[in-house]
Amino acid sequence: MRVGVLTGGGDCPGLNAVIRAAVRKGVQDYGYSFTGFRDGWRGPLAGDIVPLDIPAVRGILPRGGTILGSSRTNPLKAENGIRRIKENLTKYEVDALIAIGGEDTLGVAARLSDEYGVPCVGVPKTIDNDLSATDYTFGFDTAVNIATEAIDRLHTTAESHMRVLVVEVMGRHAGWIALHSGLAGGANVILIPEQRFDVQQVCGWVESRFKVRYAPIVVVAEGATPKGGEMVLKDGSLDSFGHVRLSGVGEWLAKEIERRTGKEARTTVLGHVQRGGTPSAFDRWLATRFGLHAIEAVRDEAYGVMVSLRGTDVVRVPLADATAKLKTVDPKLYAEAGVFFG
Amino acid sequence: MRVGVLTGGGDCPGLNAVIRAAVRKGVQDYGYSFTGFRDGWRGPLAGDIVPLDIPAVRGILPRGGTILGSSRTNPLKAENGIRRIKENLTKYEVDALIAIGGEDTLGVAARLSDEYGVPCVGVPKTIDNDLSATDYTFGFDTAVNIATEAIDRLHTTAESHMRVLVVEVMGRHAGWIALHSGLAGGANVILIPEQRFDVQQVCGWVESRFKVRYAPIVVVAEGATPKGGEMVLKDGSLDSFGHVRLSGVGEWLAKEIERRTGKEARTTVLGHVQRGGTPSAFDRWLATRFGLHAIEAVRDEAYGVMVSLRGTDVVRVPLADATAKLKTVDPKLYAEAGVFFG
Amino acid sequence: MRVGVLTGGGDCPGLNAVIRAAVRKGVQDYGYSFTGFRDGWRGPLAGDIVPLDIPAVRGILPRGGTILGSSRTNPLKAENGIRRIKENLTKYEVDALIAIGGEDTLGVAARLSDEYGVPCVGVPKTIDNDLSATDYTFGFDTAVNIATEAIDRLHTTAESHMRVLVVEVMGRHAGWIALHSGLAGGANVILIPEQRFDVQQVCGWVESRFKVRYAPIVVVAEGATPKGGEMVLKDGSLDSFGHVRLSGVGEWLAKEIERRTGKEARTTVLGHVQRGGTPSAFDRWLATRFGLHAIEAVRDEAYGVMVSLRGTDVVRVPLADATAKLKTVDPKLYAEAGVFFG
Amino acid sequence: MRVGVLTGGGDCPGLNAVIRAAVRKGVQDYGYSFTGFRDGWRGPLAGDIVPLDIPAVRGILPRGGTILGSSRTNPLKAENGIRRIKENLTKYEVDALIAIGGEDTLGVAARLSDEYGVPCVGVPKTIDNDLSATDYTFGFDTAVNIATEAIDRLHTTAESHMRVLVVEVMGRHAGWIALHSGLAGGANVILIPEQRFDVQQVCGWVESRFKVRYAPIVVVAEGATPKGGEMVLKDGSLDSFGHVRLSGVGEWLAKEIERRTGKEARTTVLGHVQRGGTPSAFDRWLATRFGLHAIEAVRDEAYGVMVSLRGTDVVRVPLADATAKLKTVDPKLYAEAGVFFG
Repeated sequence: MRVGVLTGGGDCPGLNAVIRAAVRKGVQDYGYSFTGFRDGWRGPLAGDIVPLDIPAVRGILPRGGTILGSSRTNPLKAENGIRRIKENLTKYEVDALIAIGGEDTLGVAARLSDEYGVPCVGVPKTIDNDLSATDYTFGFDTAVNIATEAIDRLHTTAESHMRVLVVEVMGRHAGWIALHSGLAGGANVILIPEQRFDVQQVCGWVESRFKVRYAPIVVVAEGATPKGGEMVLKDGSLDSFGHVRLSGVGEWLAKEIERRTGKEARTTVLGHVQRGGTPSAFDRWLATRFGLHAIEAVRDEAYGVMVSLRGTDVVRVPLADATAKLKTVDPKLYAEAGVFFG
Repeated sequence: MRVGVLTGGGDCPGLNAVIRAAVRKGVQDYGYSFTGFRDGWRGPLAGDIVPLDIPAVRGILPRGGTILGSSRTNPLKAENGIRRIKENLTKYEVDALIAIGGEDTLGVAARLSDEYGVPCVGVPKTIDNDLSATDYTFGFDTAVNIATEAIDRLHTTAESHMRVLVVEVMGRHAGWIALHSGLAGGANVILIPEQRFDVQQVCGWVESRFKVRYAPIVVVAEGATPKGGEMVLKDGSLDSFGHVRLSGVGEWLAKEIERRTGKEARTTVLGHVQRGGTPSAFDRWLATRFGLHAIEAVRDEAYGVMVSLRGTDVVRVPLADATAKLKTVDPKLYAEAGVFFG
Repeated sequence: MRVGVLTGGGDCPGLNAVIRAAVRKGVQDYGYSFTGFRDGWRGPLAGDIVPLDIPAVRGILPRGGTILGSSRTNPLKAENGIRRIKENLTKYEVDALIAIGGEDTLGVAARLSDEYGVPCVGVPKTIDNDLSATDYTFGFDTAVNIATEAIDRLHTTAESHMRVLVVEVMGRHAGWIALHSGLAGGANVILIPEQRFDVQQVCGWVESRFKVRYAPIVVVAEGATPKGGEMVLKDGSLDSFGHVRLSGVGEWLAKEIERRTGKEARTTVLGHVQRGGTPSAFDRWLATRFGLHAIEAVRDEAYGVMVSLRGTDVVRVPLADATAKLKTVDPKLYAEAGVFFG
Repeated sequence: MRVGVLTGGGDCPGLNAVIRAAVRKGVQDYGYSFTGFRDGWRGPLAGDIVPLDIPAVRGILPRGGTILGSSRTNPLKAENGIRRIKENLTKYEVDALIAIGGEDTLGVAARLSDEYGVPCVGVPKTIDNDLSATDYTFGFDTAVNIATEAIDRLHTTAESHMRVLVVEVMGRHAGWIALHSGLAGGANVILIPEQRFDVQQVCGWVESRFKVRYAPIVVVAEGATPKGGEMVLKDGSLDSFGHVRLSGVGEWLAKEIERRTGKEARTTVLGHVQRGGTPSAFDRWLATRFGLHAIEAVRDEAYGVMVSLRGTDVVRVPLADATAKLKTVDPKLYAEAGVFFG
């Protein structure tokens, strides 16, 4: 039995932990061999492989990124993409494929598995936590910890100068990182893509915070957009909700707050710091368990499934379920956080 | 409506986050007043109170420990304990009580609620994660992160000297911290209280690690005990499994490994570092949600319940369920980790 | 003896540690009383004071920011500024003043002391490390640690996608943070305000890094500027070197690299995260010693001086020396780092 | 020109940064070749070598430990040790040797250089900071940061239970780690090997801290010893001051404090956590500069010297100076800290 492994889409802390766990268990418990494909779906498409055995995965557990590289290559859009993948799997004698990725990567795996009979097992990954059919994806906890630490640091400098600090965090279509880090960091305003914000209301919260002699921290997801049409946009494209995409909402919002409240405001854009570096303990544990269970699925010939966290259990769900619909923040959950606004 | 709040048992990162969230929501959304009781059950027993309002809870979210103090006082063992508590609740006009604690603290709340009609809501807390009826308790994730960081640091020093490093982590009756931090840290041996260990087998794992030119990390829960009778004990008491309690299993094990394998071994005892300091983002989020939901339970007059995490939802469970049985590590889960031993 | 204390200019981790040490030593060893002035020079100018005694400074050692608040108020520009300060010092019976701040704050202290006979002792503070007459200022080590951690995190994500990551760090006039964090983080390009950079040379370094199959990290101080006139400027103002000031050099540079090399580039702007939050151990130690020695200077009636770090000793230097000239990065030191470029 | 490199004695964060910097500069600027010797002086003694070139040192900057391994092998005690080293240097065509280590390792380098004409350059290393002739050694700042973080965490748990927390930190003969981390962490008692402590005085400080309703943190260096003869010793050996060596002073002291004050006390023994893992930014910067300057010394044929930090400069000092005398804590510096005791 030879198992292929690939990692697709944006990288995320914990990818290496999945790879390591799968290889350790596959080799030791079942005598499997492994082949790594380089750069997501580009690997099986182009026949670009790397050796993958126990020495290759030693010491990678705490390392961010992915030893296999990643890309956004979509084989469904490549000429004869599926046929070339099947040919390369045959050529390299790969009997089953573990695809680690987000919506796009797993969507390809679902179609390969369901429509073309390629034996795939999916492992969910996204720092945005916006994949359906799993309680959490690994990478998310790490991102939230990093954003929370940044918010912690900003409180004291904000208060020393009685300034507004705006932190722009990741989350183009879903506000999970903003919501969790905002709650954990004690932010006074949390803005998410799921709900357009009212700049005047934001300014009201900012001002009520100053009234109790504390300085406000505003956490804004990169995909959050204001109500109304007052925004000057950098790129003019449309976002997934059909309204115009913002580039640089953090900086824009800081300026708007300054203009309307007369208070100084500063912006921090954490960017890729949120997706790099060593995974949190939770993400290493989750990624490791996902790797182990992916191999169990291979052994059971349970293809077309994704491993998934449900409570404290790792279970299997159809790949198609995972990619059917983006998991966005429940309005009730967002409302729950509202008690801390202002 | 006046709500009393107390924190009992060993302290744990996140207690202050619960208190803050409960007070913020209670005051702002429902107009409740609050009374803090000092040092767990000692507070209502002795009538020792502290004022608790929004200014009192500002800025405490990221702080470890508890602004209310804690103790292991058991009112059921105090003379007229229950009567004195009821009298003090009446005296201070407290209509409902939020008890934040572990097995012992919540056990008292269960009896007060079920047998004496005192309106109690419980909030589960233990860094050991050994409370039934909730997926996780806050404090646990922080402890696991701290232990994992320590293990990360020990790998490089172990390998530079080709030594064994033994890390003793918390967990008197349950091995959750050892299991999670051991998996997350890439330990080569993980020993938990639920399963007596065979020193000779441990030495085998240690030696097989050296054979691949890596140095082994052994994570041992403070409550883990060896098979057989070869241990020299410091205090001679019996542990919860009926076998003699070890004090200093880490140090003992390091010596035993040195003696049997001829390799150098060193010990780190993390101790209270695991339970102090700022909570992880996950624990702040969980504790905050527990605080909010405890107030919802009070508003619904849902007494005799504990708030509990189920997947990503916070639900209510009978207090009695939470304290019926220690939640220990499932043997299957422990077996899953075995692939990394050696 | 009554000692006034104020903190001026941009806040910086360690300010509270200075205040605490000064108060502890003053009260305990010499029986001094203390008066805090709020918001830098605005405090003595406006007569805005806060009580300052041992209970007020308990627990503030690890906290970022300043309990006294800060501002950039310059009393030399205020009408009758000096006279009002002298009147307020008399009114509040303040016999000596400890001024904690950077170039501007200490410049005022120097003039007050030298020209108007106000008994001042200075304590140097700037995260930028650009004050002459001291080896280091506190706050700098913390900022460098934060920037270095961010760079560490960016390496793995850069390499997973073979992208350029540009990190913009603080340093408007001096490149100390960029130089130290760039060296510590293993950056492949470090750009500082002291030396205009050649975009084409930067692109050369970027490309040579890709050639060895690693992804480049570019650290750029916010005050760094390119050679030539190709920059589109946001604000058009002139910087301290007489060339036009850049706003957003990080983002500009990332775009320029993308355009010229065809490689993807991403930007992180750390912003105020670098100056907030708990100080590093070094900064707490340095700030504490500065606080103790400032009190010794008061006791010795050694006014008009600043405490300063020389090797491992804290010494006194004339206030005027500290503010005579910005301490910029020595070209030799910058050249030393060049071996790691590309 | 071929340069040999070895790392001896206890490992320490920053060793890899020295190796990397030396190799990068040697190869790129001067065209040198390198040979790594394994496990300190055992390498040249036994002729155990590893290849050392630019690819071998990529990515090791942030990694703790040493890629060359370490040991305490003393060639002066080995039969024909010096002759065998000279033979192996000749055999492997090594023209100069960079020895990175502490007192013992550099002592050997000094004798090899001064008495036997082996061209050696020393690089000082010790987490204990007890080497003369340099302001700081790398590894020390990392150890102090780790110990300080642990102390930070212990404050909140100590105060929640009004307990004494005793932290045993490294420092067998010198109290630098205890002094710096104790000051930075806000400890209430700091005990160092240089000055025997009076248990009764320690208990007095502990009690005076409780009187202001705060819980005391006691930082004790592993080599600290009490006055009088009341200690029960574990190993009975003599320490460097001629008094009997303590094993486990932290645990002993906690018990003694409990016995004398009636307060609960707990102990944390940080152990090797202090010397493992990624170096702080300061240590990476210092280690990198030491590596660069060691190569400059080789190029200048300046043998028999050690690179050393003086203020912000790296200079050369005779190897013999570095090892002549242990650098212990100046009594005046220790007295300075006394204002925070109790």
